[in-house]
Amino acid sequence: MYELYYWPTIQGRGEFVRLLLEDIGADYLDVARQPEEDGGGIPGLRAFLDDPGHAEPPFAPPILKDGDTLVTQTPLIMDYLGERHGLTPQDDGARRRTLQLSMLLADFLIEVHDVHHPLAKEFYYEDQKDEALRRAPGFRDVRIPKFYGYLDRLLGSSGYLVGKDLTHADLSLFQIVEGMRYAFPQTMARLEPDYPAIVALRDTIAARPGIAAYLASERRIPFNTHGIFRHYPELDA
Amino acid sequence: MYELYYWPTIQGRGEFVRLLLEDIGADYLDVARQPEEDGGGIPGLRAFLDDPGHAEPPFAPPILKDGDTLVTQTPLIMDYLGERHGLTPQDDGARRRTLQLSMLLADFLIEVHDVHHPLAKEFYYEDQKDEALRRAPGFRDVRIPKFYGYLDRLLGSSGYLVGKDLTHADLSLFQIVEGMRYAFPQTMARLEPDYPAIVALRDTIAARPGIAAYLASERRIPFNTHGIFRHYPELDA
Repeated sequence: MYELYYWPTIQGRGEFVRLLLEDIGADYLDVARQPEEDGGGIPGLRAFLDDPGHAEPPFAPPILKDGDTLVTQTPLIMDYLGERHGLTPQDDGARRRTLQLSMLLADFLIEVHDVHHPLAKEFYYEDQKDEALRRAPGFRDVRIPKFYGYLDRLLGSSGYLVGKDLTHADLSLFQIVEGMRYAFPQTMARLEPDYPAIVALRDTIAARPGIAAYLASERRIPFNTHGIFRHYPELDA
Repeated sequence: MYELYYWPTIQGRGEFVRLLLEDIGADYLDVARQPEEDGGGIPGLRAFLDDPGHAEPPFAPPILKDGDTLVTQTPLIMDYLGERHGLTPQDDGARRRTLQLSMLLADFLIEVHDVHHPLAKEFYYEDQKDEALRRAPGFRDVRIPKFYGYLDRLLGSSGYLVGKDLTHADLSLFQIVEGMRYAFPQTMARLEPDYPAIVALRDTIAARPGIAAYLASERRIPFNTHGIFRHYPELDA
């Protein structure tokens, strides 16, 4: 059984891993969402992070534990799980391109976060709201079209990012689309019609049985203003 | 022969790739540093990026071209080249951990950049200097110790980040150390004594023949205030 170590009250980076695990119907334990008395909660997560017994101590969540193997960095977790469950291409070049796109999406995610936290993770949003208001227009007008335009072109005729079959990078793009709709509803309502292939991929993935069941379940934590995608109406337009 | 596509007047992300190529004594062409009349310069770089003939169009530099293969995302370029030249571990788990660390260093690099550009790449430093001044203390006091402390512990007894031999992640850490010394000389003079294993690794790598020759050559672009590492005295302390 896989164990996922991630913050229990947000989707965040861990959600990419959850989506993959749910899509393949994996048996997994979302450790920090278990009761504290069973070793879960944030105390359980912290105890795992601080455990001096790790041969290869992890830097930060999300962390996947598969027996004695720990994998960190979301794109690498996706690559690792995808290889074992048919969502990572077997061909070396295609596998590398899939990981490359997953890393690009991770880069975009940092920009999404930094729109509302341009100064520091350590400050509250309210203490960097003026700066966020200055950062948001460039994100909306320049960065989103740059990323979405690139990805939409890549989807091309096959409808998937790499080759002709679904990969873990497609699942990650689904999560980006969902997060962006939550955080920037006005912006995305305006921009999405320019990227029909992305919207079509989103719909394809939402209809996959494992994903549809997950989204309808209580396991899917609602988006909220503690995660990476945050809906602050003043940053949307 | 390898071709590297990257901005010609800065070290930036391309420098990680250059260091690896120089360490192994590879035959490579730093395309944008060739004369414009030979297809180099920024026009040559832009023409390559905008070429509609790419089967897999790249998103952004640095890009490594190896025959028909294009590789982007700095950590993946390092993994790719390292595999071919003995700087990527052959064991799957060790290879993954090396890539994982390379990705962690790439994450740190984004933070280094965003200290001086907290609001947007599109604004001049002077137009976000107040915000940079607010961001810098947390970077110096919290983020650098977090990353350096983690990496120093990993270096442990072997002196290398993964296993007992040099990998591409060690080369990348060398570049981080050099950049940080340039950008934050006061901060690093104060902090580095706490991380002796990092300093020792830096010295080991600086003494490697290929690296030493490169650093002494005109091929090494000096650090400057157009790159990722920038020395703004007001951000250092």
